[in-house]
Amino acid sequence: MLTINAERLISRIHELGAVGLDGQGRRTRLAASDEDKAGRELAASWMEEAGMRLVVDCVGNLFGIWETEENRDQAPAMTGSHIDTVINAGQYDGCLGVIAGIEAVQTLREAGIRTKRPVAVCAFTNEEGVRYQPDMMGSQVFAGILSPEAALAAVGTDGTVLGRELQRIGCAGSAEPGFLRPCKFVELHIEQGPILDAEGVAIGAVENLQGISWHRITIRGRQNHAGTTPTRLRIDAGLAAAKVNVFLRQRCTLPGSRTVATVGTMALSPNAVNVIPDTAVFTADIRNPDEERLQAEEQALFDFLRELERTDGVTWSAERLTRCRPVLFDRGIVELVEKAAARRGLSCRRMTSGAGQDAQMLTRLCPTAMIFVPSVDGVSHNPAEYTRDEDLVAGANVLLDVMAELAEAGA
Amino acid sequence: MLTINAERLISRIHELGAVGLDGQGRRTRLAASDEDKAGRELAASWMEEAGMRLVVDCVGNLFGIWETEENRDQAPAMTGSHIDTVINAGQYDGCLGVIAGIEAVQTLREAGIRTKRPVAVCAFTNEEGVRYQPDMMGSQVFAGILSPEAALAAVGTDGTVLGRELQRIGCAGSAEPGFLRPCKFVELHIEQGPILDAEGVAIGAVENLQGISWHRITIRGRQNHAGTTPTRLRIDAGLAAAKVNVFLRQRCTLPGSRTVATVGTMALSPNAVNVIPDTAVFTADIRNPDEERLQAEEQALFDFLRELERTDGVTWSAERLTRCRPVLFDRGIVELVEKAAARRGLSCRRMTSGAGQDAQMLTRLCPTAMIFVPSVDGVSHNPAEYTRDEDLVAGANVLLDVMAELAEAGA
Repeated sequence: MLTINAERLISRIHELGAVGLDGQGRRTRLAASDEDKAGRELAASWMEEAGMRLVVDCVGNLFGIWETEENRDQAPAMTGSHIDTVINAGQYDGCLGVIAGIEAVQTLREAGIRTKRPVAVCAFTNEEGVRYQPDMMGSQVFAGILSPEAALAAVGTDGTVLGRELQRIGCAGSAEPGFLRPCKFVELHIEQGPILDAEGVAIGAVENLQGISWHRITIRGRQNHAGTTPTRLRIDAGLAAAKVNVFLRQRCTLPGSRTVATVGTMALSPNAVNVIPDTAVFTADIRNPDEERLQAEEQALFDFLRELERTDGVTWSAERLTRCRPVLFDRGIVELVEKAAARRGLSCRRMTSGAGQDAQMLTRLCPTAMIFVPSVDGVSHNPAEYTRDEDLVAGANVLLDVMAELAEAGA
Repeated sequence: MLTINAERLISRIHELGAVGLDGQGRRTRLAASDEDKAGRELAASWMEEAGMRLVVDCVGNLFGIWETEENRDQAPAMTGSHIDTVINAGQYDGCLGVIAGIEAVQTLREAGIRTKRPVAVCAFTNEEGVRYQPDMMGSQVFAGILSPEAALAAVGTDGTVLGRELQRIGCAGSAEPGFLRPCKFVELHIEQGPILDAEGVAIGAVENLQGISWHRITIRGRQNHAGTTPTRLRIDAGLAAAKVNVFLRQRCTLPGSRTVATVGTMALSPNAVNVIPDTAVFTADIRNPDEERLQAEEQALFDFLRELERTDGVTWSAERLTRCRPVLFDRGIVELVEKAAARRGLSCRRMTSGAGQDAQMLTRLCPTAMIFVPSVDGVSHNPAEYTRDEDLVAGANVLLDVMAELAEAGA
């Protein structure tokens, strides 16, 4: 059975992980920064070492394309992820997918295999969205969801303009987003959640990606003295907000529910020990992999808020902050992931991506799925982010198998 | 039936209410300020007009004593309240009690009545505690709870020292706190709560004063991604805090419960939309007029927090911020209030003071009770504080009746 070069994979992860460390050892490679440029140059050198042709598109997406005279007219099988990072990041998020993609190609090539289709590996620009909004920017442009002009005009948190920064670091290419039309796409990524680690499972066959609904909710009650106001005359905005939090959790624990919900922010006003709050402002983050269910959760939230008008006397308003529909990945590719894991004796489970991913954008272009490997304790976006070497290697080998299949398959 | 001079009462309330208005029409007479001095001089002038002898004690408590050659050896019947205010105050809080006390004496004297006991009216120093801590300072010193030295050494929010400020404004007297030993004490005050107004009742016969328990509670959970962390693996500190809020309200609505509880402040950390909170810090203000019940409520809170360790996986700590035992007022005086109201055809109900009062300190010295009049919508500590003239007059007449009785009664 063909296997990737584990030593090369791990050493490249560490080599890229060493790019962008500051004086305190904090790793930061924000999109289109000097550190990002250094990371891109490293990735490009590995793509060339693997025998790939380099293409940079107009928003800086970096492609390595392994093709031959015979297969160059075929739609390529494609993989990829990102190498930009958050501030004070770990070394696995995104980088694993890019490095393992290059590794898969290099392994196939070194084995003398000639695939029916080209294989493309992409490092998408600005997945994290820390410096420039929106996140997943490069894959959105590649998938035709966001225009290159809008992306290049994005103004960063530091006042810079993405287009100019890409030119400055020499990463503004000329290829149009549609220059490459993949037939299939698969992305290897760390889970960034605790499920695989908690269950001791090596491989996640990611079959879908949760829809996300964010609202900022304002509940208004009546400010009164905490000592002199009898319970029956209170309109406590903070209590009503607490009831919403408890209600959301109850929804999540209904039998069969796949909803997760979080009240992550809360502000009471006037926020004094002995004053009944007249205002509570809080956020509700609700996710479900099924669009109808997600809508039902939003409806349940609003119904509950309306019920609070009656039971608690409060008034409320809600502002939608973010709304993404769930994404269903391609069943055929998910099954290829499961089969590859089984052949290699790796435990595997189907799962849902809780976070947003470049792969969700690719579903606009072609059948797509993802492979997850465990994140110890679910930690990510943090220097403590960690995936065991054996899990990195296992994930890369599954990616190799799936890419090899996709590169041989018909349209 | 003897009645107070309604016009004089109301005009004095407005006259004192005009002292301490700033350029924006905001009324502020902080303890021992120039504005407080102006208010004291006005009150002292009315005491003299009512035929009272003035005494200022060493912490600035201002007494008017109406006595005769025949009764000066008897322990006086006493009333009083305060004329210092919060910042941007209403005109009734405290002032009503002092002005109505003077009015009662002046009415008795003008009617040619000679009581068996002297009648004393006191304006206690620094009831509000805005500039100097603790609040109810003058009555605490008068009742022997706080030493004069400690009170005079209090450093204000503006860096001043109370003793020096009292000297500066000419209100540092020489009388020792124990110079006057009242036989009975009754205080007329606005309710500062909504009960009388909501029920359309004219007079509150205040039979007790709630005990107060304040805690700052910290709940710790585990910070995690709001999208990738399954519900069963969450330890959500904010959710646990919400459960505490809901639990406290449930306690308050148990049949027969006289508890009121308020979560007035709340802070989540890291307070981000898509991060499960690892820390929630909030306050619990719990009040009950019965000490055993108040202790039971504190116990129930701690039991619930311990239960949350098991059910939610959180840890917690609690810091006591304030603890005052409930105060039981004198049944005999409460009945006098009820009888006086009935004689005058005024609706009356027994009630609990939800706020702290000078009268609670006087219970250390002698049988004590309070009379409440309605606060429209329960508003206080606010320029919108309002009590209808007819209610002010009704309260003053009930005070007159009760003081007349107390001044005739045996020990």
